Amino acid sequence: MDKLHEECGVFGIYNHPEASNLTYLGLHQLQHRGQESAGIVTSDGLKMHLHLGMGLVSDIFDEDTLDKLPGIHAIGHVRYSTTGSSVVKNAQPCFVETAHGPIGFAHNGNLVNAASLKHELEEAGSIFQSTMDTEVFAHLYARSRKTKLHERLVDALSRVRGAYSLVALVESRLVAVRDPLGFRPLVLGRLRDSWVVASETCALDLIEAEYVREVEPGEMVMISRKGLESYRPFGTVNPRKCIFEYIYFARPDSIIFGKPVYPVRKMFGAQLAKEHPVEADIVIPVPDSGIVAALGYAEEAGIPFEMGLMRNHYVGRTFIEPEQSIRHFGVKLKLNAVKSVLKGNRVVVVDDSIVRGTTSRKIIKMIREAGAKEVHMRISSPPTAHSCFFGIDTPTKNQLIAHTHTTEEIARYITADSVGYLTVEGLRQAVGGEGFTFCDACFTGDYPVRPDGVEGVQLGLF
Amino acid sequence: MDKLHEECGVFGIYNHPEASNLTYLGLHQLQHRGQESAGIVTSDGLKMHLHLGMGLVSDIFDEDTLDKLPGIHAIGHVRYSTTGSSVVKNAQPCFVETAHGPIGFAHNGNLVNAASLKHELEEAGSIFQSTMDTEVFAHLYARSRKTKLHERLVDALSRVRGAYSLVALVESRLVAVRDPLGFRPLVLGRLRDSWVVASETCALDLIEAEYVREVEPGEMVMISRKGLESYRPFGTVNPRKCIFEYIYFARPDSIIFGKPVYPVRKMFGAQLAKEHPVEADIVIPVPDSGIVAALGYAEEAGIPFEMGLMRNHYVGRTFIEPEQSIRHFGVKLKLNAVKSVLKGNRVVVVDDSIVRGTTSRKIIKMIREAGAKEVHMRISSPPTAHSCFFGIDTPTKNQLIAHTHTTEEIARYITADSVGYLTVEGLRQAVGGEGFTFCDACFTGDYPVRPDGVEGVQLGLF
Amino acid sequence: MDKLHEECGVFGIYNHPEASNLTYLGLHQLQHRGQESAGIVTSDGLKMHLHLGMGLVSDIFDEDTLDKLPGIHAIGHVRYSTTGSSVVKNAQPCFVETAHGPIGFAHNGNLVNAASLKHELEEAGSIFQSTMDTEVFAHLYARSRKTKLHERLVDALSRVRGAYSLVALVESRLVAVRDPLGFRPLVLGRLRDSWVVASETCALDLIEAEYVREVEPGEMVMISRKGLESYRPFGTVNPRKCIFEYIYFARPDSIIFGKPVYPVRKMFGAQLAKEHPVEADIVIPVPDSGIVAALGYAEEAGIPFEMGLMRNHYVGRTFIEPEQSIRHFGVKLKLNAVKSVLKGNRVVVVDDSIVRGTTSRKIIKMIREAGAKEVHMRISSPPTAHSCFFGIDTPTKNQLIAHTHTTEEIARYITADSVGYLTVEGLRQAVGGEGFTFCDACFTGDYPVRPDGVEGVQLGLF
Amino acid sequence: MDKLHEECGVFGIYNHPEASNLTYLGLHQLQHRGQESAGIVTSDGLKMHLHLGMGLVSDIFDEDTLDKLPGIHAIGHVRYSTTGSSVVKNAQPCFVETAHGPIGFAHNGNLVNAASLKHELEEAGSIFQSTMDTEVFAHLYARSRKTKLHERLVDALSRVRGAYSLVALVESRLVAVRDPLGFRPLVLGRLRDSWVVASETCALDLIEAEYVREVEPGEMVMISRKGLESYRPFGTVNPRKCIFEYIYFARPDSIIFGKPVYPVRKMFGAQLAKEHPVEADIVIPVPDSGIVAALGYAEEAGIPFEMGLMRNHYVGRTFIEPEQSIRHFGVKLKLNAVKSVLKGNRVVVVDDSIVRGTTSRKIIKMIREAGAKEVHMRISSPPTAHSCFFGIDTPTKNQLIAHTHTTEEIARYITADSVGYLTVEGLRQAVGGEGFTFCDACFTGDYPVRPDGVEGVQLGLF
Repeated sequence: MDKLHEECGVFGIYNHPEASNLTYLGLHQLQHRGQESAGIVTSDGLKMHLHLGMGLVSDIFDEDTLDKLPGIHAIGHVRYSTTGSSVVKNAQPCFVETAHGPIGFAHNGNLVNAASLKHELEEAGSIFQSTMDTEVFAHLYARSRKTKLHERLVDALSRVRGAYSLVALVESRLVAVRDPLGFRPLVLGRLRDSWVVASETCALDLIEAEYVREVEPGEMVMISRKGLESYRPFGTVNPRKCIFEYIYFARPDSIIFGKPVYPVRKMFGAQLAKEHPVEADIVIPVPDSGIVAALGYAEEAGIPFEMGLMRNHYVGRTFIEPEQSIRHFGVKLKLNAVKSVLKGNRVVVVDDSIVRGTTSRKIIKMIREAGAKEVHMRISSPPTAHSCFFGIDTPTKNQLIAHTHTTEEIARYITADSVGYLTVEGLRQAVGGEGFTFCDACFTGDYPVRPDGVEGVQLGLF
Repeated sequence: MDKLHEECGVFGIYNHPEASNLTYLGLHQLQHRGQESAGIVTSDGLKMHLHLGMGLVSDIFDEDTLDKLPGIHAIGHVRYSTTGSSVVKNAQPCFVETAHGPIGFAHNGNLVNAASLKHELEEAGSIFQSTMDTEVFAHLYARSRKTKLHERLVDALSRVRGAYSLVALVESRLVAVRDPLGFRPLVLGRLRDSWVVASETCALDLIEAEYVREVEPGEMVMISRKGLESYRPFGTVNPRKCIFEYIYFARPDSIIFGKPVYPVRKMFGAQLAKEHPVEADIVIPVPDSGIVAALGYAEEAGIPFEMGLMRNHYVGRTFIEPEQSIRHFGVKLKLNAVKSVLKGNRVVVVDDSIVRGTTSRKIIKMIREAGAKEVHMRISSPPTAHSCFFGIDTPTKNQLIAHTHTTEEIARYITADSVGYLTVEGLRQAVGGEGFTFCDACFTGDYPVRPDGVEGVQLGLF
Repeated sequence: MDKLHEECGVFGIYNHPEASNLTYLGLHQLQHRGQESAGIVTSDGLKMHLHLGMGLVSDIFDEDTLDKLPGIHAIGHVRYSTTGSSVVKNAQPCFVETAHGPIGFAHNGNLVNAASLKHELEEAGSIFQSTMDTEVFAHLYARSRKTKLHERLVDALSRVRGAYSLVALVESRLVAVRDPLGFRPLVLGRLRDSWVVASETCALDLIEAEYVREVEPGEMVMISRKGLESYRPFGTVNPRKCIFEYIYFARPDSIIFGKPVYPVRKMFGAQLAKEHPVEADIVIPVPDSGIVAALGYAEEAGIPFEMGLMRNHYVGRTFIEPEQSIRHFGVKLKLNAVKSVLKGNRVVVVDDSIVRGTTSRKIIKMIREAGAKEVHMRISSPPTAHSCFFGIDTPTKNQLIAHTHTTEEIARYITADSVGYLTVEGLRQAVGGEGFTFCDACFTGDYPVRPDGVEGVQLGLF
Repeated sequence: MDKLHEECGVFGIYNHPEASNLTYLGLHQLQHRGQESAGIVTSDGLKMHLHLGMGLVSDIFDEDTLDKLPGIHAIGHVRYSTTGSSVVKNAQPCFVETAHGPIGFAHNGNLVNAASLKHELEEAGSIFQSTMDTEVFAHLYARSRKTKLHERLVDALSRVRGAYSLVALVESRLVAVRDPLGFRPLVLGRLRDSWVVASETCALDLIEAEYVREVEPGEMVMISRKGLESYRPFGTVNPRKCIFEYIYFARPDSIIFGKPVYPVRKMFGAQLAKEHPVEADIVIPVPDSGIVAALGYAEEAGIPFEMGLMRNHYVGRTFIEPEQSIRHFGVKLKLNAVKSVLKGNRVVVVDDSIVRGTTSRKIIKMIREAGAKEVHMRISSPPTAHSCFFGIDTPTKNQLIAHTHTTEEIARYITADSVGYLTVEGLRQAVGGEGFTFCDACFTGDYPVRPDGVEGVQLGLF
């Protein structure tokens, strides 16, 4: 798929002599959730330290920088963001000095009332340092008159609406909170005497922490010398977890929302094969994101699975495009068609989604030029017809091809012999049947929370 | 597999207005052949320009640096090398001023008599700038008394023994040469009015050049205003092409040595399944290098193929290892086991080779800890029992586990329930039967050329 | 002299097509007032831009960075600060977004109640980004409820006590303010249709602006499309201008406080010769700061002036000290004694001040080792016996040798044959007689304003 | 003066545990002889190490880089060069591997037959790495068939003609050589058990080494475990030491050519006053280079000496010039006129030389605009009417104003009321009378050695 990015991954560790090193490793495992900037805040119980940078975790941190992050508690963050605000002052964690002492925040999600809160805070004389909504938490916290840490946090969080999986570090306490609807994942782990929180369990695996459970929707977990305390300050509502985490974002080796990703994603492919069978010689994925669903499709359909597209993993951030147009250039930098696999065959291509359609069109051209006789596109999710306001960087809905075109029109545009999308029904069934607790607004338009301002306009301010 | 690296990829283009841009793209496609340094030399027919750097192609070059490489002819190089000599002065192309004018050399391979030639040249007063064997070409060329370019090159090349796929650029001519035994690949392509040479065809695909043929073993191709001229200055011998290119190095989407890589590699896996069948529930590859052979194995064996190991592609160059030992740390940075795939299953793991065995041991531990009931290792090549002197960075043979241990001992060391290697016979058959024209000395010890000095000691000087 | 540094130089320009370029040049001329960091804020009347950096003006800015600072109005700042807080977030101008729009502040001086104001603002929920007192202005401004710019500024400035020569830039207005006591200089200039403000007139000279007058103590000048408006919102008091500007800080080619520096400084030397005559062969300055006073001394005393100490102007920021002690190492990096001048002579050395005495001691040793027969130290200011709270980085008074030792003891410590200080009376007379309007608290202890907290403890917080 | 730069300073130390640190300090003291690049080569008797960089000594070296330069012997170099070849590969020392082992060369001067030697060496197959003439030494040395070090060096040096003060380091020997005419200075010092060589004695002063004597013209000094050996392999000729070292290059605190610089330079000023007296109110120098001569002039003439021009020492390498022309911009960045000194006065300005005249013209304009009634230019050397081929970067003679204009014409061009140059006779007398052993070809055209090729064309190749 092209250009569907979530904004962040978060990590936190309490009480470990190598807190910054392990946070670094945890962020390394969450790197797929954001490659634009990263940062770590540590605390030794008294003093706190911060290091931020633009780029990959392994470029930002080295032994020297990690040595300058002493302390037994730490939080970290990896961030993706759209180009405009791609500057280091928008990197997280957001670390501030307040009258209550220093505090760091690492946040995954998107607040829908951040703009109006910022306006209100500035009117009252607050000075913002960044354009990220995470800083709204910081100012609300700084202005709280409550005397206890968790009360100040609840005070601040009660004002915000939207998606947040938030990790906060004060001098000797680590706090993890998930918004009441639980859009973004957040898991809790244990490493001997240390507590760990992370966006996905793959971050626990590397440091050999044991998966304990999810931080639950609406739960605030506070870890201190007294151990782990759980609060539920926001009341209880039916959760709306992001279904796209299973379709695309989360790594297949992770457990999120209480369930492993790989079998769910494979089931999407199998269900897709049932709903949209086709006579074909081979099933190929758009690597890497389409691999697991393609395996499910191939197995269910009884058609051989092949790697008909090869991915180049060395693509850098900026790439020089030659002036003389090379056809389908952008895609070719990442993918190359394997002629010896494709030539003369009827091909099923499995991808996780179609956003604008331009990438799919280029991929199909590549496959045809490599000699395929037929190309059938199969998408392991329903048509993406609505924008997301909760942390996924989708374009406005008019740029979503599935918002403006029928499946037949899409097939014609991307030059596929046929296109098949997973149905919403099939999706829900594959993920686990009754008691559906997911947000699938990007397919259905059924938003659990509305953003401020004009309907349907995606938030650009933050 | 662990730590088998070839040293280089080369690229050249003659007569294209965007010569440096296309060379940059070609090197991008050859990045898997070397990630340590890269460089480009261009010529506008009169003046020549050079830019070199350490790191990835996309880090070394940007619009500014490419703008400073004008000219319609260019050659480029990506390099891998062992740590000791990892400095920019050893980056290629090697560009020198001589009494015959400036010349650039980009070289893939390893000369077995480089040390003695260097010694001889220094005795005669030559001053070397680097420790790479490529510079030997430069000094031999500079000292040649011949009046014509191709004679000077033949003069120089007649002195060297070993593996070389060499691309040279002088002011208005591009030369491509392959040593008589043809160890390393080199292909010739055509892009409208331009000629292109590259280590693999995947570099042609991106720039939409058409594959014409191999530069043949022992052939020197000279491209100038007069068109393409072919010389065969070294006589003819039976070639000894590197079989490891098919096993591991080359990209599956490339054509090398006249044959596509993907079906050959898949055939290795299928042949392996015939030779070493086993009762199992799933076949998984060690990604990415084992994927194609694993598909061949799974298909032949009729066992489902799954992605039981997930690869993290964001691993940077240097990585901070925590002091408190994390088991199998090095491997875990790159690979994570997918518990939901492996748990309770009998697993066949397909990899391309075993060098020291330490990586395989770590991988199998990961798979067992993820809940696998049985782990059967299958290797899509024969036991690597001998060092390579022709451009592959293998350890000395005493560090090769297959040199010092039987298959049973290897199985015990890596804690596999069984280990099965492809036979040399099976390998030869899979690659195409009679008239075997490959070097498989790393499996058989049958070296086509002997290095200078004590037998069996790998060259460390260059 | 050693280690008496003022913290800053400020510059502002209104209505010039090359505002950032001229600010850059102005800062270049004020570089002697701070070499640690520099910054420029520009405005085109709508949008504002900022660039800051650590180091010298010519290292921080180049054509590219200046191109990214469009606009016809600009302010700039050069800063010196003690090591602890030498980080880029403490560089100025301080540029913030407020509910009233963006604003930039460049400030020279020191607020004596900054700590208590910061505490009060944080209690009210403000989040500080830096540890510099300039940010206090920003928060006070952001919280002001007044509707007009100048009222908000007066609102903020009414809260602070201490020394400030402040330049502020909002979208289309440039404001220059001097505290009621007028500690630090601030001059007003005119360049065709543009207004210029700067700490010293030498910054006007380079850009060929004409000196108009001082911004007066307690005056707020606001420059806008309506022209220049002058306000006096703080009432009138007898000013206390910093006498040390004449002794050491200001460049001899500047006019400050309405009078040129060179003749005043030379008069200090002449007066010193009258007060402390001595039989000698030559008068030498400690270059560069002692040159002008030494000329005055030599002329008055009728003793030849020579350059007996040579200064090396290439001293970098950090310098590697050899382990084997080189005597008087620190001073030797900057100064070298000229044997052919000093040998066999009775020498008068003129310096502007003695702080700790360690540097003077080293200098005198160097002079003696070069062969001087006698060394008489003459200081063109009274004994520095008290700390400064208004922007000069003096040590606490117990580290001031003149606070703890008599002149005779000082002579013995620095190994001078005699030491002579200018008297306070002589100083006052030299600077212009009756109606003395200067702060000479560093000599007399007569502080015009008291800092918060315990008496005599210098402010460390900011 | 404007734009007369010598190319280099050299330093060497034998047998000191902090060899690289002391070399670093020595180069710091020689920084006035070259600010473009610097480098150090060290040897521990077996292995040798190199570090080079562009810029100032204190920017290129820090504790880390010096730690990577172990060894008890070292040589270093600071370099000035014209823009074209300002690249790191032309930085010195030149360090090469040869069949005789590694060797480093640091060279101050200019070879007049470098171009033809380079051509000859390339014809024989040598490959040059740089465009500096120092590399010619390296190739000649590498090709020598002699068996002893000093014979190989003599072999190489016998081929070159021109100016060189050369320091060479091989594994356990330090060699210092001065060309037979002895153009450039080179002094020998002693620091306990260590030997030191340097371009000027100011480098000895900082590290507290004792001045022993000059390395004499035509002398080769070899320092090894056997102690210091002196060779005179080139026969004896009447030396031609560069008189400009006394006029401008050398620091006033140095001893070179056996005599201290300060009194010689002051004598130039006194002699100038005798030859060109004028009625005036003040004598001012063009700082810093004109200060000592101006003191001599003022003393002889009995006119008060004042600092009428202030120098800004913070001028960086590149400076942004505003588009709207500021008059005399280039000079104003460095110098500012002191109005309070100049206003209403008849001024004598003393400078060391006039090259093109453009700078003098700007300076005089500044002085007049500051209110001077008359401006009389006095130059402490004869008219510079001829180019230098021995290491001073003078323009071709047609660009030298004194080559093409009379003194009256020069006065008119630079707008001086009068111009007075020191006579050649006066110069010779001031420097020491009979037995004149200096090269003053830049004044007289009497070149001791002729460069290759067309007469009067300055060497551009190196």
